[in-house]
Amino acid sequence: MNELPPVVLGPVVLWADLAGIFVSALGGALLAVRHKLDVFGVFVLAIVTGLAGGMARDMLIGATPVAALANPLYLPSALAAATVVFFGHRLIERASQPVMLFDAMALGFFAVAGARKALTYGIDPLPAVLLGVLTAVGGGALRDVLLAEVPRVLKVGELYALAAMLGAAVVVVGDALGLPSAPVGIVGALATFALRMVSVRFGVTAPRAPGSE
Amino acid sequence: MNELPPVVLGPVVLWADLAGIFVSALGGALLAVRHKLDVFGVFVLAIVTGLAGGMARDMLIGATPVAALANPLYLPSALAAATVVFFGHRLIERASQPVMLFDAMALGFFAVAGARKALTYGIDPLPAVLLGVLTAVGGGALRDVLLAEVPRVLKVGELYALAAMLGAAVVVVGDALGLPSAPVGIVGALATFALRMVSVRFGVTAPRAPGSE
Amino acid sequence: MNELPPVVLGPVVLWADLAGIFVSALGGALLAVRHKLDVFGVFVLAIVTGLAGGMARDMLIGATPVAALANPLYLPSALAAATVVFFGHRLIERASQPVMLFDAMALGFFAVAGARKALTYGIDPLPAVLLGVLTAVGGGALRDVLLAEVPRVLKVGELYALAAMLGAAVVVVGDALGLPSAPVGIVGALATFALRMVSVRFGVTAPRAPGSE
Repeated sequence: MNELPPVVLGPVVLWADLAGIFVSALGGALLAVRHKLDVFGVFVLAIVTGLAGGMARDMLIGATPVAALANPLYLPSALAAATVVFFGHRLIERASQPVMLFDAMALGFFAVAGARKALTYGIDPLPAVLLGVLTAVGGGALRDVLLAEVPRVLKVGELYALAAMLGAAVVVVGDALGLPSAPVGIVGALATFALRMVSVRFGVTAPRAPGSE
Repeated sequence: MNELPPVVLGPVVLWADLAGIFVSALGGALLAVRHKLDVFGVFVLAIVTGLAGGMARDMLIGATPVAALANPLYLPSALAAATVVFFGHRLIERASQPVMLFDAMALGFFAVAGARKALTYGIDPLPAVLLGVLTAVGGGALRDVLLAEVPRVLKVGELYALAAMLGAAVVVVGDALGLPSAPVGIVGALATFALRMVSVRFGVTAPRAPGSE
Repeated sequence: MNELPPVVLGPVVLWADLAGIFVSALGGALLAVRHKLDVFGVFVLAIVTGLAGGMARDMLIGATPVAALANPLYLPSALAAATVVFFGHRLIERASQPVMLFDAMALGFFAVAGARKALTYGIDPLPAVLLGVLTAVGGGALRDVLLAEVPRVLKVGELYALAAMLGAAVVVVGDALGLPSAPVGIVGALATFALRMVSVRFGVTAPRAPGSE
């Protein structure tokens, strides 16, 4: 019921969203192929992984119709990724851990897009970080739930939520300092990606509650 | 943040929604009885299966309060179906595969209602088809997730998403051609139902990604 | 698309929400510790359990940005509970069945907050009860789904949905009778808590469909 002036989204949200949708849909479609789903399963998982996090974000802040439905580029980005994977998965699988790689890239893009869009809609810094994290982990979490797996975000020994939090925090702090949003967004996405990759490669883990080991 | 004129929904959305709610709630309640849930489990699954898809649709396009809460007939339709099943499940189970049958009917009604409501809210044709599919498969998918099962929409060898897509596409194409919405809606719902039934009866399957067999 | 006057929420929704968030986040964080999740898992489950039900409620009625993002106390309440549990779980676990206890308290607070907020937004009595139940069971259900468990609300022999329904119904009936909302809210929350505790302690169960035993 807030009285909002017309919201002007800068280019950071759009491009970070589109990049996040494409790479996360690649990851979702690859997982579908590995699970031997048919062509519709591949497209459903690509769409879910690519669009669900941003859909949740937009519904929560009241940016409706959500961008995934209102923007003519969002759905095609997910469909393009699914098509690439459907025909090219054997090539892509030659990369080392491609699903993890795509997920890490998407995590950065979405954390930045989510936090930036939250700030644009007048959300405070702390919940803006939460919304960045939710945008980043939401699509992958729903994908994992649909596959009846425990989502990555709850798995021990993977700095997944922390990595998303870092990128979103970069955006929020950069905004508070009045820095230009495009370079700040790039730094945020890179920070998330780097922390996530370092965590996976070197097995960095977060502590458990004292006494729960 | 779109400036929308007051939205006037024709009768197609209302009647397709109500029919979809009733038959999908029948299916959800039957599954609950089969899982030996108690009376509240039966009502919860009927409500989830009947209302969740349309709730997601309405939240995504910003049609809030969602029809499931704002329209006085939606919730009673789901409750009526749950009551019928609670007392009459032994009779209904004599039908051949009643859950599948009710799901197939609901798939058609909801695909039409979802696509039509999306168009009414100014959504473009391609995302309108997506919204029709989401409305159609959402309730059943959430039901399956709550029962810790992989949703039907991801199961191989069932033209479930494609059937919903067909009905939604009929609505979108009919709208583009300026055809009257009621007969187009009936054709769309029938097309979805027919494709789904043919797929189940004759074991029609969709292809997997090349090289993933 | 309803033309709503500026909505004035009384103190009942705020305080019931905050109390519900804190105790349900305690329960969610405790479950995370028991599942040996790391510090981020503990915070994620606390946030999900504490905030998801109210987020769903607010999205469904169009109260966006949702209170969990717009109100400066909501997210900190969940974070505080997670912190308390992270460092103090060994103390808390000495209580008898603390997760069940916190869940029962949260069930009452959220049922009242959900039903009251629904009425304030002009929702009819019957769907207002549904929204109270959804607010009450939503966070815990999502938490259970993320942990790949069947949600409590579907488990046989636990008057979980009925207890939430009772508290929400007290609010709706009290409102219809023109009674003051604060004492009615307290009675509603207590009624839910009491019925839930009695059900657990004495093994009260709901009937199954005739012939499904």
